[in-house]
Amino acid sequence: MQTKVAIIGYGNIGKAVEQAVESAEDMQLCGIFHHNDNLDAIEADVAVLCTPTREVPVYAEKLLLRGVCTVDSFDIHGQIYDLRQRLTPFACQHKAVSVIAAGWDPGSDSVVRALLQAIAPKGITYTNFGPGRSMGHTVAAKAIPGVKDALSMTIPLGTGIHRRMVYVELEEGASFSTVERLLLEDDYFAHDETHVVQVDSIDVLNNVAHGVNLTRSGVSGCTHNQRFEFNMAINNPALTGQVLVAVARAAMRMQKEERYGAFTMIEIPPIYLLPGDEEKLIRSLV
Amino acid sequence: MQTKVAIIGYGNIGKAVEQAVESAEDMQLCGIFHHNDNLDAIEADVAVLCTPTREVPVYAEKLLLRGVCTVDSFDIHGQIYDLRQRLTPFACQHKAVSVIAAGWDPGSDSVVRALLQAIAPKGITYTNFGPGRSMGHTVAAKAIPGVKDALSMTIPLGTGIHRRMVYVELEEGASFSTVERLLLEDDYFAHDETHVVQVDSIDVLNNVAHGVNLTRSGVSGCTHNQRFEFNMAINNPALTGQVLVAVARAAMRMQKEERYGAFTMIEIPPIYLLPGDEEKLIRSLV
Repeated sequence: MQTKVAIIGYGNIGKAVEQAVESAEDMQLCGIFHHNDNLDAIEADVAVLCTPTREVPVYAEKLLLRGVCTVDSFDIHGQIYDLRQRLTPFACQHKAVSVIAAGWDPGSDSVVRALLQAIAPKGITYTNFGPGRSMGHTVAAKAIPGVKDALSMTIPLGTGIHRRMVYVELEEGASFSTVERLLLEDDYFAHDETHVVQVDSIDVLNNVAHGVNLTRSGVSGCTHNQRFEFNMAINNPALTGQVLVAVARAAMRMQKEERYGAFTMIEIPPIYLLPGDEEKLIRSLV
Repeated sequence: MQTKVAIIGYGNIGKAVEQAVESAEDMQLCGIFHHNDNLDAIEADVAVLCTPTREVPVYAEKLLLRGVCTVDSFDIHGQIYDLRQRLTPFACQHKAVSVIAAGWDPGSDSVVRALLQAIAPKGITYTNFGPGRSMGHTVAAKAIPGVKDALSMTIPLGTGIHRRMVYVELEEGASFSTVERLLLEDDYFAHDETHVVQVDSIDVLNNVAHGVNLTRSGVSGCTHNQRFEFNMAINNPALTGQVLVAVARAAMRMQKEERYGAFTMIEIPPIYLLPGDEEKLIRSLV
């Protein structure tokens, strides 16, 4: 029997989830709810929350209260554990499962970080992002007076240090030097190497490519110099959408096993993310 | 309270496990049993099997029968699922947990393969091994008449294709051309590009370095060209020993949760591999 999936929010991520659900044989799309739609009509096993990240907690609570499992890609790193603690009682009381912070970072990168820390317990992991668009920094740049449109690219410099390349399209009559100064003083940019570049059109620069270079040099037992590296170069919303569909599948499996609650991806057996026969999966992947 | 760990078998891997146990604050070494020792005296929560891989099933059964959890790095890829099925009833009946095939391949690489298949479901994963010593091929080379000692190195050529560089030290009077012909005809070598090199001493070539380059190009939703790569350059027994200690910890956790049975690493939540406070782990890794 197919899992009935609802999508809440229909921006870049919502559209990508739709495509991932449609290409998953074990899932069936049962509704797309735009932001602010009434959710009373929802008849889903699991809802994929593709709303702005700050609205995730409220939507998740509402749905868990009705026994609908939820998955999200909540991405405010400092608040993930708190969200887990907030949603756990809702999920447990209503025999549901919520998988939170399930995109690629936080998300699949978190799984790689946990694995590498387990197999080389002492050492340093560096997560280097990009090149790719930073949503948060782009929004901050757009908020500067005189900026008509902006794009903030994250450029990895290694050891977790990033350069910000900020492209700005100015409003008529705005002064580039003033915009540049205000932007460099903004708390979002003041701590990183930041370059501001004036362009005629942001539209022609836009691209949803992103990437990660995650490295760890560590110690296994008492043996130093164990080296690990994980790289990806991906379409950002497509990957996020696919991760959400994978954790929706895992949420169903956890619910079936009566393991109710809110979980991050590092708390889920990786095989639960995959469709198909357990024996075949183990034979082909292990 | 510390987990009491016994080590069964004291070769390269057993010694590496000893080091990994000694550097783990939550574990306590309670005995090292050499191959063929009597195991009746064993008083452990979990036994780490570092015997030759073919002897793993019998040792695991014996220990599970007595309620002792077991972990191993059984590495015959085609027989892992069968071992899981064989050990499951022993583990379940005696309220124990067995984690099998837990080295780096099978093992941590399997987790990466499962994760990448989940987040880009269509596509091809290539696992490229080395450069590093292949145990199986080295044993096969040593069995050729006229060979005093040998070392077979696995060299990755990409797309899962490997070259074998076989170094041989000959017995006095042996003919290199005969040894080379017999070796190239051997089933272990007949299917790969193989080069045989005569050397004066194998001893000076030996090195436990190994590596992996694992790649996947796949499709997330309907978006192609999602690229992933996992690399490592490691000390082979040290990494295997550390993985075994991590899964020993996970076995204890599964037993505590009354989830008895035999499991591969892709069936275990990654956070179970790690010591320490759950909140701290989630806050630092997710």
